[in-house]
Amino acid sequence: MSPKITTELLKQLRQVMKSPKYVQEPVQAYIVPSGDAHQSEYIAPCDCRRAFISGFDGSAGTAIVTEQQAAMWTDGRYFLQAAHQMDNNWTLMKMGLKDTPTQEDWLVSVLPEGSKVGVDPFIIPADQWKRMSKALRSAGHDLVPVKENLIDTIWTDCPQRPCKPLITLDPSYTGVSWRDKIVALRSKMAERKVLWFVVTALDEVAWLFNLRGSDVEYNPVFFAYAVIGMNTIRLFIDGDRMMDPAVREHLQLDSTLEPEFKIQVMPYGSILSELQAVGAGLSPKEKVWLSDKASYALTEAIPKAYRYLTPYTPICIAKAVKNASETEGMRRAHIKDAVALCELFNWLEKEVVPKGTVTEIIAADKAEEFRSQQKDFVELSFATISSTGPNGAIIHYKPVPETNRTLSVNEIYLLDSGAQYKDGTTDVTRTMHFGIPSAYEKECFTYVLKGHIAVSAAIFPNGTKGHLLDSFARSALWDCGLDYLHGTGHGVGSFLNVHEGPCGISYKTFADEPLEAGMIVSDEPGYYEDGSFGVRIENVVLVIPAETKYNFKNRGSLTFEPLTLVPIQTKMIDVNLLTQKECNWVNDYHQKCREVIGAELERQGRHEALRWLIQETEPLIRVQ
Amino acid sequence: MSPKITTELLKQLRQVMKSPKYVQEPVQAYIVPSGDAHQSEYIAPCDCRRAFISGFDGSAGTAIVTEQQAAMWTDGRYFLQAAHQMDNNWTLMKMGLKDTPTQEDWLVSVLPEGSKVGVDPFIIPADQWKRMSKALRSAGHDLVPVKENLIDTIWTDCPQRPCKPLITLDPSYTGVSWRDKIVALRSKMAERKVLWFVVTALDEVAWLFNLRGSDVEYNPVFFAYAVIGMNTIRLFIDGDRMMDPAVREHLQLDSTLEPEFKIQVMPYGSILSELQAVGAGLSPKEKVWLSDKASYALTEAIPKAYRYLTPYTPICIAKAVKNASETEGMRRAHIKDAVALCELFNWLEKEVVPKGTVTEIIAADKAEEFRSQQKDFVELSFATISSTGPNGAIIHYKPVPETNRTLSVNEIYLLDSGAQYKDGTTDVTRTMHFGIPSAYEKECFTYVLKGHIAVSAAIFPNGTKGHLLDSFARSALWDCGLDYLHGTGHGVGSFLNVHEGPCGISYKTFADEPLEAGMIVSDEPGYYEDGSFGVRIENVVLVIPAETKYNFKNRGSLTFEPLTLVPIQTKMIDVNLLTQKECNWVNDYHQKCREVIGAELERQGRHEALRWLIQETEPLIRVQ
Repeated sequence: MSPKITTELLKQLRQVMKSPKYVQEPVQAYIVPSGDAHQSEYIAPCDCRRAFISGFDGSAGTAIVTEQQAAMWTDGRYFLQAAHQMDNNWTLMKMGLKDTPTQEDWLVSVLPEGSKVGVDPFIIPADQWKRMSKALRSAGHDLVPVKENLIDTIWTDCPQRPCKPLITLDPSYTGVSWRDKIVALRSKMAERKVLWFVVTALDEVAWLFNLRGSDVEYNPVFFAYAVIGMNTIRLFIDGDRMMDPAVREHLQLDSTLEPEFKIQVMPYGSILSELQAVGAGLSPKEKVWLSDKASYALTEAIPKAYRYLTPYTPICIAKAVKNASETEGMRRAHIKDAVALCELFNWLEKEVVPKGTVTEIIAADKAEEFRSQQKDFVELSFATISSTGPNGAIIHYKPVPETNRTLSVNEIYLLDSGAQYKDGTTDVTRTMHFGIPSAYEKECFTYVLKGHIAVSAAIFPNGTKGHLLDSFARSALWDCGLDYLHGTGHGVGSFLNVHEGPCGISYKTFADEPLEAGMIVSDEPGYYEDGSFGVRIENVVLVIPAETKYNFKNRGSLTFEPLTLVPIQTKMIDVNLLTQKECNWVNDYHQKCREVIGAELERQGRHEALRWLIQETEPLIRVQ
Repeated sequence: MSPKITTELLKQLRQVMKSPKYVQEPVQAYIVPSGDAHQSEYIAPCDCRRAFISGFDGSAGTAIVTEQQAAMWTDGRYFLQAAHQMDNNWTLMKMGLKDTPTQEDWLVSVLPEGSKVGVDPFIIPADQWKRMSKALRSAGHDLVPVKENLIDTIWTDCPQRPCKPLITLDPSYTGVSWRDKIVALRSKMAERKVLWFVVTALDEVAWLFNLRGSDVEYNPVFFAYAVIGMNTIRLFIDGDRMMDPAVREHLQLDSTLEPEFKIQVMPYGSILSELQAVGAGLSPKEKVWLSDKASYALTEAIPKAYRYLTPYTPICIAKAVKNASETEGMRRAHIKDAVALCELFNWLEKEVVPKGTVTEIIAADKAEEFRSQQKDFVELSFATISSTGPNGAIIHYKPVPETNRTLSVNEIYLLDSGAQYKDGTTDVTRTMHFGIPSAYEKECFTYVLKGHIAVSAAIFPNGTKGHLLDSFARSALWDCGLDYLHGTGHGVGSFLNVHEGPCGISYKTFADEPLEAGMIVSDEPGYYEDGSFGVRIENVVLVIPAETKYNFKNRGSLTFEPLTLVPIQTKMIDVNLLTQKECNWVNDYHQKCREVIGAELERQGRHEALRWLIQETEPLIRVQ
């Protein structure tokens, strides 16, 4: 990896930072955040502005360019990568280290008195703007919105914003029609006494209208905003996708509808002026509901007194609780996904053991091939982590030719992968050995398995927040002085983003709404030995009501049901470290894999994979 | 309990709210918070202003009096009590219920346009002032500081502020001299680049100077403030206590000292003017460090640009980590406390079983009597919770003649009590049955015990926050659909407040600094069946380093060592519900009780109690 040469680009950027064509007054610094206008986790190529200006293309990082300097803030996952990808015009700011200044402190230390700091108001979330603006103002500087994105002005070969065809989902997939979702949303709006709701997150727009797209890789979303009034629906979307008869039919664009369900389609770029018009027309006590993570530009369109901001929108919360159709879809998707993985693992055992010709990339491609054979397969749900030996210890590893390693009978193999099917989203990690694992490798694997089971089998009161379960996943590792430095689980969308809020299982306590039946999260503890191996065992699990002997304060209890049904390699388990209860859990889980996945393998005529499944799900026997 | 008649008092208060003698402009509402000027949990009688004006004397509640109305906000623990104690001049605002307005919302709804709301700036913490002031301002009202406390102006028989003699503690108790504590504090100040530190919490003043007092019941503290500069020490304290030769000697008031250790003693009431003088003399970049919970009056004395506010002061954090002398003192105190409890429980068994003449109050008094026989006993550390049968289900119960129940062989007895000894503070809960417990009672007790052990025996990485351990205490209860509605543990002072920050074990995640070796917390899960019985098992435990097989990232591990050594009634345990590991924990714990407490009982010639101890610590045997 050689660094990107940015001398000329930075020179150009510094010119436009002073050009009256783009800025009212020259700005002495310009901030280039990571995100897009929707605060998406995954972004389209046209939104990779920070990567364009710096060369650093990790998923998290903020660039700030002043007249003399250029600095990049990123976290521990990316210190090495950023150092490799950036030339020496750039200073790397290692977040989380004691001596690293915050962006605000650094700006205050380098800016000349009374400076202006520019940022694209569409890209910066309102809460970040507020913090940054306050810090700068108290030091005599000003944060100013620069309407035209300055990177775009110098990015001559910037790719076009994607505008791909839409997929319509009927209620057999979504369980609820978009009309009923609008009705439910309006009733939430009435509860909070707001007149308008602005939908800014891409997966929330997609969910609300029962539409999917492919504008962003791995995420079946499309670029759009929506503004829902008590009697109006405005959808801001570009391209000729609204010409598609199936979409017109789905949204009933050509039907005579009650006016409150009539969708007005407007250009994507007109959201700001439309919202400003809404803002200008408000009477006292009329409120507009926005996420507090919406962009500064959209938030500012509504005068402060009329804003109603919440960390989670009612759509985010409704979307997290899957209904029966969505749950059934997720079950089907996980059965198909398990079929593909049984094929893969069976194939790997046949190829790796005698031939040794399978690399991490070949294995990842093969996994995709098997998945794509399944009904309603759309795409992968994230970049496959196919890693063997020391690569397995790199938590966010993705094989590239420079790092690509060959699978062998001497190393642990870790595969974290998933797919989008029209009926659901999957995300599963299995760790396996194709030869004879060492006692230490088995020991670590077994602690991780104990943690996985502790969460999966946990019973807890209705309304418990996920962070209260995180330590269950670590307890067995902690007992031996081990741990892992990531959360235990994240919310999973229903044919939507593989990472979604507002629930999860993590030692971090922010962004954590109470768990309730119907929510779907991952359960993925791990252990990573730098330079040696990685272990992770991940299932996607559904929150379900639990039957308990008693029922304190009539609160009811919850537990998890695994949706992922892929064998956990018993060869890696040190059975003597399991309790009888844990041993029974593994055997019951494998019995279910045999029954459910076995039947589907049979149906699909995949007899070799079925033989593999039967052999991998032999019950464990614990010697007392 | 008949309500306090407050008609006349409220009339008087409303008069002074308009009197130019006390307010610059009339105030249309006056807020009476719970606390004192030091944000103490326990307050002196002269500070019980809210109880005086309303009759309601629970530990938490805020009164607001307007020209027409009077309202009291309190939480679920006190709904009944407040309703009984207040007459119908008052409206009870039940906090936590959906329809209860916040104080700000209520004020906005009842106040005439452009009102002034008064509050004593010495009583309201700065962070609360800020929130309330902002809310009122945005509705066109003003929060104004009223210098003279308006309750005090009408409280004709207000008790005097206590001003009791001080106790000096030499380094054999404290481990560190006050001079060395000042040196350490100044080095923390230098690190943060602050020139002044203001000590406002009473236990922080006491800790810093190695002094104790008895101005507040149960808390060995005295009314004082301190202001520490890089070269000056000012102690604000009233009365002739500084005339005591022992105190003068301890503080070296009459010695020729280096000037930076010379303590200037000043009147308690002069803190504000002195701090204002400090504030006025600051140059740019000179900062003053205060807790963000310090009063609005003191915080305002320092111009905003010069304030350095933190949720925890360096004293709070240093105080939480006990040194070897303090730890040894705590061990000694807990041995003496256990001796007293063995005597008590032995006596109870002899009195309750055949005679049935012991009431909750008699038992509490007897516990105090046995404690007071021990060396260096000072006072109780909180009001004894002595509760039998249904009273045990009231978590903050304190027996009074109206509720006083007789202990019997048919009911569970719960005793939560503790004491202040000159060498340490104790807090212990035991739950016992003097007859034959039901299977259900034993089952519940055993789940609570499993939770207690899960926390006590937990191994976790250095730097783990206590809230990550809370679920361990609940897991066995959750499995059966049970739970308890309080935290699992609190920090415990060393001959100081029985509740202290900044660490604890709770599902609530605020106020929670990482655990480190030397910290002392309680471990007290419970189960409460309304109208029937309560179970709680509480030990005070010391955080100690744990030996583990591996050591991930060289972080080191921690665990707990019980300081409390009082038998846990084995009659209440359903052994079949314990794992072998849990069974071993109980037997090891009882073995230690036998050895340590047995030796002390022997030494004190308490042979009957020793026999009781031996019998109560017989090993459990688990049938496989």
